[in-house]
Amino acid sequence: MSSFMKPLTQRASLTAHQATRTVLASTLTQHQRSFSTVTPPPAHFITTADYTADQLFNLVDRAIQLKVEAKYQYPQPSRERPLAGKTMALLFSKLSTRTRVATESSVAYLGGHAMFLGSRDIQLGVNESLLDTSRVVSSMVDGIMARVGEHEEIELLAKESKVPVINALSAKYHPTQILADLMTLHEHIHHRQQGKKDQYTAHTQHPSETLPGLKVAWVGDANNILQEMLVSFPKLGIHLSAATPQGYHCDQDVVALAKADSERTLAKLEFTTQPQQAIKDADVVVTDTWISMGQEEEKAKRLRDFAGYQVFYSDRSLVFPEAENRKWTIMAVIDALMVKGSI
Amino acid sequence: MSSFMKPLTQRASLTAHQATRTVLASTLTQHQRSFSTVTPPPAHFITTADYTADQLFNLVDRAIQLKVEAKYQYPQPSRERPLAGKTMALLFSKLSTRTRVATESSVAYLGGHAMFLGSRDIQLGVNESLLDTSRVVSSMVDGIMARVGEHEEIELLAKESKVPVINALSAKYHPTQILADLMTLHEHIHHRQQGKKDQYTAHTQHPSETLPGLKVAWVGDANNILQEMLVSFPKLGIHLSAATPQGYHCDQDVVALAKADSERTLAKLEFTTQPQQAIKDADVVVTDTWISMGQEEEKAKRLRDFAGYQVFYSDRSLVFPEAENRKWTIMAVIDALMVKGSI
Amino acid sequence: MSSFMKPLTQRASLTAHQATRTVLASTLTQHQRSFSTVTPPPAHFITTADYTADQLFNLVDRAIQLKVEAKYQYPQPSRERPLAGKTMALLFSKLSTRTRVATESSVAYLGGHAMFLGSRDIQLGVNESLLDTSRVVSSMVDGIMARVGEHEEIELLAKESKVPVINALSAKYHPTQILADLMTLHEHIHHRQQGKKDQYTAHTQHPSETLPGLKVAWVGDANNILQEMLVSFPKLGIHLSAATPQGYHCDQDVVALAKADSERTLAKLEFTTQPQQAIKDADVVVTDTWISMGQEEEKAKRLRDFAGYQVFYSDRSLVFPEAENRKWTIMAVIDALMVKGSI
Repeated sequence: MSSFMKPLTQRASLTAHQATRTVLASTLTQHQRSFSTVTPPPAHFITTADYTADQLFNLVDRAIQLKVEAKYQYPQPSRERPLAGKTMALLFSKLSTRTRVATESSVAYLGGHAMFLGSRDIQLGVNESLLDTSRVVSSMVDGIMARVGEHEEIELLAKESKVPVINALSAKYHPTQILADLMTLHEHIHHRQQGKKDQYTAHTQHPSETLPGLKVAWVGDANNILQEMLVSFPKLGIHLSAATPQGYHCDQDVVALAKADSERTLAKLEFTTQPQQAIKDADVVVTDTWISMGQEEEKAKRLRDFAGYQVFYSDRSLVFPEAENRKWTIMAVIDALMVKGSI
Repeated sequence: MSSFMKPLTQRASLTAHQATRTVLASTLTQHQRSFSTVTPPPAHFITTADYTADQLFNLVDRAIQLKVEAKYQYPQPSRERPLAGKTMALLFSKLSTRTRVATESSVAYLGGHAMFLGSRDIQLGVNESLLDTSRVVSSMVDGIMARVGEHEEIELLAKESKVPVINALSAKYHPTQILADLMTLHEHIHHRQQGKKDQYTAHTQHPSETLPGLKVAWVGDANNILQEMLVSFPKLGIHLSAATPQGYHCDQDVVALAKADSERTLAKLEFTTQPQQAIKDADVVVTDTWISMGQEEEKAKRLRDFAGYQVFYSDRSLVFPEAENRKWTIMAVIDALMVKGSI
Repeated sequence: MSSFMKPLTQRASLTAHQATRTVLASTLTQHQRSFSTVTPPPAHFITTADYTADQLFNLVDRAIQLKVEAKYQYPQPSRERPLAGKTMALLFSKLSTRTRVATESSVAYLGGHAMFLGSRDIQLGVNESLLDTSRVVSSMVDGIMARVGEHEEIELLAKESKVPVINALSAKYHPTQILADLMTLHEHIHHRQQGKKDQYTAHTQHPSETLPGLKVAWVGDANNILQEMLVSFPKLGIHLSAATPQGYHCDQDVVALAKADSERTLAKLEFTTQPQQAIKDADVVVTDTWISMGQEEEKAKRLRDFAGYQVFYSDRSLVFPEAENRKWTIMAVIDALMVKGSI
């Protein structure tokens, strides 16, 4: 209804409905007579850069506790689930099986309804329509998980949204992946120290006891994953050494944040073009595809640029545990924002 | 299974299963021995023309009460939700973000499962397959929300369906939009009279006290929105003045209904080709896009025909409140048909 | 995170987080200190060939009891639903309205969330990616319903999956359709014997009392439906006569299974190229489309081959009751695998 209001000029007297008004008005069932329409802005999760080390450690810990509760402590308690009756919209301008499955199953576990809206279902990306979409969708749902193109899109979405917005990937940041990486690293380090096979005990130790002091090597593109690591790992006391090819650089504000954090926590921070240099003494090597969706055209150039950057697909790979942990970390973020109200 | 039955001619004696029959039969857990398969036809919501003024006022009031309950009276009561275990199929032959989001989030709030089936998921529109779809889908779900092309499709769907059918848009009618318009108008008039900013009190007044006597102006096409207003506004005592370009006419049966209603309630009814004439003394101006999906070919002609029909996009626009109210009015219709059993 | 682990070589001492560790660790809420990560493999439902006659009869009986409970014994009990918080992934490489609607509404009735992933949402069929998909998706959800191409795909999916896998159709087998056929046959035979119109009483008799001794005729292709009948009907004591055109043959292992079963139960088993021969004295004739999705190219040849195979579309057709029964039989399988843990 595109409309504008003009001053009330006349009110016709219509007797047809006069008789029933008294009765109808008595059907009102709400006791309170007025409600404030002024509400504080919602909390969002756009990048780990927005949160402290303790908040991030606790978020990973919360994910681990949720995993133990849901996976090992069956049957679940028969209480009303915290998101019962609530809807989370998944606005995905790009496909992502694992993020989608992780999110939908998390929302379902908490009792809510996940509504997937892909690029075929909804238009994102055009600024004006994004503004409209953000206002309209956020007025009907209880939370939004968005996978966008430019980072400005997720920022605009969060600015205009009346409900929490979670960044499921933007050109600049990828916070949910880094949370899952941290959780997986914690589990790996914890279980390696315990030495017990076939026993899950990672929930008995806090991530702030296992993660600080690790060295992580990145071998790959200067992309949103590396940038998300830069704004979180130094802050968490994790040493980070990044090997990217000549000519591939991170955003200056991201590098500045990483440097400031590393000076404060004494975590080592290193940029190099030599994969072997980055990998030296690393506890874990992280990489990613070099050719993302939308980069097919420059494939040949990228194959040349990344020669020598192939990382061995080890039998000690943590790919599958990390994929599962997407679910528990995303659930922890949803639980924080949509149930508790803040990280 | 396409099959036909022939008379039973033989029954082999098979001893293999004789021994277990007695035991197996005792696993039957139902106490009642027979159930009637004859059920009354379900109630539908195809157009507001099918309901009285009081039914429509009460439907808008119910939407307002649901809004207050869900939006302002958090946390929700922890009772079993009324649609728990129920599924509503959304059969959409055309995309519609706001109707879809409004419906899915409404169904979720009531505890049910919304199953979206777009034109890529299911075939609608061909009569025989529509008949099959209606029979098959309605035998498995508890309600259907359908967005169709020709109005005959929604009528056939409702006729064959074993469960309630809600018209989410047809070429002839658009009842859910008009309900949201009425709710938004009620809220606007109520709050203007109260003069309190930042306080929601619209639930304390019945729509039958605010809506009769208003003048609504329509400036635009002679489409399903105008037709839905014609079959409801005069009946509700709302004056309606419609400006459509030369050569754009509503269906004769719709105009006849509007005229009969306006004679009974004394609501003024006016048709004109002059937007300024329609807008004069109006409390609200309603319009819509002139070029709908599927009309791209005649775009040039339409741009000519509608010259002078541009309506100012006012800062007093009610576009966004109306969008949100889609949710509460659709929820009220679902609640009426699928929980209570009738409007 | 594609990564490999190297031995822990150093742990930096970072005092920044030392102080908070004790407090943070106390937020651990799980009482149990360790959980076994060794779990027994899940039960699947790939073909009726994997189950005994009694298991199949009881599955059909369970479907009937669920139908009576959900359809006739309203309102449903207000207990916590058994799949509350659980997610079932629907991996469909081919569209299927009735299987999808049946499954989504079944999962919703049991309280779970059905997540539909079509060929546009997820890639199936390539072996390596199927392996990845199976591992990743099954680590996040509680059950999988898959509609695949080659039968090897569903077998690989089941082998790698951590959660139950249900075959919603493969090139070789179609177990959920045959369960619905059996349920529909039971209801038809039972109600014909009772002679009461408009009364549902089929739940008072066990399928093992109505199905053995029936003669079923198949007229059509040597496809997955006929093959599923071959591995179940003789085992259940149902006579089966299959008319397929010259040159259309079933898999040898399937025929061998059927022959062995028929020798044991004395159910008659007949293969012919003459439809009239198959139909003779049959209690029911079953057929299916001769041109499935993907076979459009050989349409002309198939129309020639199947000349004379048209089966009369009788007013005694059970097509629509069978379609509805997809829901109840699929619900029984889901209930068996995801709630009870086995068929």
